[in-house]
Amino acid sequence: MQGREALTRSEALAARIAALEDREAIRGLIANYGPLADAGNCAGAAALWVEDGIYEVGGFGVYRGRAAIQALLEGENHQALINGGAAHVLSPPVIDLNGDLATARTYSVVFRKSGDGWQAHRVSANMWHLVRIGAEWKVACRVNSLLDGSADARALIAGQPLPSD
Amino acid sequence: MQGREALTRSEALAARIAALEDREAIRGLIANYGPLADAGNCAGAAALWVEDGIYEVGGFGVYRGRAAIQALLEGENHQALINGGAAHVLSPPVIDLNGDLATARTYSVVFRKSGDGWQAHRVSANMWHLVRIGAEWKVACRVNSLLDGSADARALIAGQPLPSD
Amino acid sequence: MQGREALTRSEALAARIAALEDREAIRGLIANYGPLADAGNCAGAAALWVEDGIYEVGGFGVYRGRAAIQALLEGENHQALINGGAAHVLSPPVIDLNGDLATARTYSVVFRKSGDGWQAHRVSANMWHLVRIGAEWKVACRVNSLLDGSADARALIAGQPLPSD
Repeated sequence: MQGREALTRSEALAARIAALEDREAIRGLIANYGPLADAGNCAGAAALWVEDGIYEVGGFGVYRGRAAIQALLEGENHQALINGGAAHVLSPPVIDLNGDLATARTYSVVFRKSGDGWQAHRVSANMWHLVRIGAEWKVACRVNSLLDGSADARALIAGQPLPSD
Repeated sequence: MQGREALTRSEALAARIAALEDREAIRGLIANYGPLADAGNCAGAAALWVEDGIYEVGGFGVYRGRAAIQALLEGENHQALINGGAAHVLSPPVIDLNGDLATARTYSVVFRKSGDGWQAHRVSANMWHLVRIGAEWKVACRVNSLLDGSADARALIAGQPLPSD
Repeated sequence: MQGREALTRSEALAARIAALEDREAIRGLIANYGPLADAGNCAGAAALWVEDGIYEVGGFGVYRGRAAIQALLEGENHQALINGGAAHVLSPPVIDLNGDLATARTYSVVFRKSGDGWQAHRVSANMWHLVRIGAEWKVACRVNSLLDGSADARALIAGQPLPSD
């Protein structure tokens, strides 16, 4: 084997490894949201987004920028939820990689303490638009939509473009 | 290092990468079921199976072939479920790879809108038999069994052979 | 390319692959707990831990050693739960690798059959301390804490050290 061939072969393997590492990083990024949100680390949760990232929350509104996302989590609704006992559980994502961009689709289920058990308080479709900045993946936009039978939520989980895209 | 040794070393690395890629593909395949089913993309959901694939659904029956699986999802029960608000959430799988074959065991939880929250309408054990065809993994057989205390469902999630195997 | 350079390059790729394999093994280890516990394979579930491993179960107690963990699962509470219909569902983990040690943080949701559906009977934060022994990852310690609003459970899922650490 010539040096040139060995290098090419090695680069091809490295590219396959990098794609696997990207998927791991995206899984880790998404899996981190719940623990940060439930622990009340609001700045940490907001820092999963890029500085001007967007979080659209079904039934609440659209939050633009880390400060707005942090304020949402510091707000009365979220604080009452986590102080009463809650879990923001994200499902395994469907990841589509495209270079330094990616999308991921997940379900999210928010359980809250209720009586002698927990209630599934919110069950949503989520479309995550992700971007790699240097070695790190961040959330550019997360759209969350309640799975209450609405066509929007169903289109979102299917990975189809939203009318507003 | 001789060319031959470099090649062998490179092939060993490539085999390890391929196994990781297989696991990623299987995770993606399984994670795709819920979004397709909930979005009402019935042909897309059925296309996760091989042409003559089998889907055994606890409490419903055994559906053989893509057309039968698609018809199940297009049927009254499933359509009423997703139009009322539903999420078919699959847990992280336990994957056992064996060359071009694999099994995966998961939980599935079907949440449906009910009152001011969602109810866990079905909680099941699932055994997936998977096959690689070319570069693509497909479902050969998925057996779903309600975790209602029955011995069958418990054996299924444990990965033990069913009496009928 | 010199032989030395090719070797170094190959070793760097192998190290990246090994880290991905470690994460796969940890995911598999954690995903295996539920099926073993729900199937009633109590010895199998206990064998996920190292011989002197610890399982701290919120609301129950601290179980030290495989024999104690197996006895917990063979006990009246767990047996009644799984005989009545139950699923111990673990969420995708947040994994932090550190050589032959790792931690993983997950949610766990125990669903149990109730009326015409299933109830989220326990919703918990879990911190897993893991250790690689030879080629195999095992649980050294799993701390489970109910997400009922208590500060301990919230600190646990955040990955912050517990007071007793």
